[in-house]
Amino acid sequence: MSSALSALPITFQDMSEAADRIRGLVVETPLLEVHALSEAIGGRFFVKCENLQLTGSFKLRGAMNSLASLSDEDRAKGVVAYSSGNHAQGVAAAARHFGVAATIIMPEDAPEIKKANTAALGAKVITYDRYSESREELGAKVQAETGANLVPPYDYRPTIVGQGTSAIEVTNQLRTQGLSLDTVLICCGGGGLSAGSAIVFKTCFPDALVVAAEPETHDDTRRSLLSGEHVHNPADARSICDAIVTPTPGELTLPLLMACGCEGWTANDEDVLETVAFAATRLKLTVEPGGAIALAAARKHLDKLKGQTVVAYLSGGNIDPAMMNKALTYADRI
Amino acid sequence: MSSALSALPITFQDMSEAADRIRGLVVETPLLEVHALSEAIGGRFFVKCENLQLTGSFKLRGAMNSLASLSDEDRAKGVVAYSSGNHAQGVAAAARHFGVAATIIMPEDAPEIKKANTAALGAKVITYDRYSESREELGAKVQAETGANLVPPYDYRPTIVGQGTSAIEVTNQLRTQGLSLDTVLICCGGGGLSAGSAIVFKTCFPDALVVAAEPETHDDTRRSLLSGEHVHNPADARSICDAIVTPTPGELTLPLLMACGCEGWTANDEDVLETVAFAATRLKLTVEPGGAIALAAARKHLDKLKGQTVVAYLSGGNIDPAMMNKALTYADRI
Repeated sequence: MSSALSALPITFQDMSEAADRIRGLVVETPLLEVHALSEAIGGRFFVKCENLQLTGSFKLRGAMNSLASLSDEDRAKGVVAYSSGNHAQGVAAAARHFGVAATIIMPEDAPEIKKANTAALGAKVITYDRYSESREELGAKVQAETGANLVPPYDYRPTIVGQGTSAIEVTNQLRTQGLSLDTVLICCGGGGLSAGSAIVFKTCFPDALVVAAEPETHDDTRRSLLSGEHVHNPADARSICDAIVTPTPGELTLPLLMACGCEGWTANDEDVLETVAFAATRLKLTVEPGGAIALAAARKHLDKLKGQTVVAYLSGGNIDPAMMNKALTYADRI
Repeated sequence: MSSALSALPITFQDMSEAADRIRGLVVETPLLEVHALSEAIGGRFFVKCENLQLTGSFKLRGAMNSLASLSDEDRAKGVVAYSSGNHAQGVAAAARHFGVAATIIMPEDAPEIKKANTAALGAKVITYDRYSESREELGAKVQAETGANLVPPYDYRPTIVGQGTSAIEVTNQLRTQGLSLDTVLICCGGGGLSAGSAIVFKTCFPDALVVAAEPETHDDTRRSLLSGEHVHNPADARSICDAIVTPTPGELTLPLLMACGCEGWTANDEDVLETVAFAATRLKLTVEPGGAIALAAARKHLDKLKGQTVVAYLSGGNIDPAMMNKALTYADRI
């Protein structure tokens, strides 16, 4: 595995350098043990709390690394991004840090908290219809008009590398406790977080299994990993996991996930709502639906995790109060 | 101050020894920066996340230290405690760890989550009417019948010392970042957490101000600190901060708080609900009303904290879904 990994277009060294590049611009988020799940599997079960990252999700990592990687001259032209909301906030916050303009193209039906937070960070927000308009075309138009740099949400090398810095932290946090890693579950939309992180994990813990966790209705990565080629989700598929309802894995990310021997696991909306309630009432953590999918998939497959050291990512916490209220109606099931 | 502190009946050394005694039995909870408040005060603002402690509150510290301090022979007789819910869970969890019986006397109107969690930890739960029955008398009766050891919730040396171990962690967490401490705000009911912690903070940071934070309706500690003697709250006072609605400061705790030069600050139920919503939506943390009082008081008095390094305790996270739903209706105010 190690020689195959070092031949990939993105390597551990890239994430290591990015971690230095964005140090102090992002938070080292806690790795917390979930004792009830450690007991349940007879092992050690941790959550990586990227919901506690600045802007409420891991997306700040990739955005900071992307902006930090631009030349001063390019960066001064500003940035444009399309995003369902977390990448939006990440890019807006990174642009604010570097003092450059940001235009963010967001779906009309994105959670209010995400639209409001993005605007509050000083970005210009343009909304579009997720099901009839092309965000890529809108982005290209802004680019053509302003000369701004496009910061893609996942299929972009500096984004993938930035997200992977989370895995450098997890690795250090496990090693500080004298632990190795058996299975890590990572919330997966386009695959930026999972691809960047998988390379770090497979480099540091070659025997670990890296799982890309997805909504049952949007299991394009799971099916693509099985078939070895890009599979799409049906256009009419719907899920409450707004952050990760991408049509198909990225061109860059899928080969990386395949090279790392990743598996795809899924959970459905009911599992996710129950897990959001579990996180809020038991873990005392606010997690959004898409950010809970890895923990939901783990809770559904505890039998596969017996005796292991497991990490599940909580990748974001930007949830509207109405959705949290809905999730809390599941509290009596847990 | 330092010579006065070393003459007190509880000293830094006691908390230091207790930290060793309960190491591995409690979690070292994160100290997280609240960047929005750091910006607001032009300083550094942190929260000590005791809501992330096992059992969902700091109370496990005092309970573990109390049970660990008993002789094997005494401990085998079991323990009894009265508590509105967090001390209940702490004592139940500590008894479970040591394999001894626990009887817990809880008010009928305690949050469901607290009653259910206490029972789930294997304790025998007896409920009483908070406003007409005496929990002390009920506790004495159980003691007389079973020979069980009473573990008082705050006016008890091993309890106070155990709670103070949280301040040892805060001190180390600040020093690791090269920081000192200007003001720390601690949620205060009977004063166990604030008294034990105040001794640590005043020993390590002699110039720091230690604030006991209370509900406006239950400001017995604030008024007692001002008058120098035990002042009681009106019997008809009501607050949503169920964890900290004690009638008057403890006999042991008040002199300790006075010796540490503590001040009392308050916030009302509206402030608390807004702060619970702030924590859930901005910090991504579940905090219960009583556990939010220190942050609520800090948010109300940011003008007093300009340029400072501040720590506010989030002392617990055991909130019923209905109360969280109510708090989330305040989300649009923040």
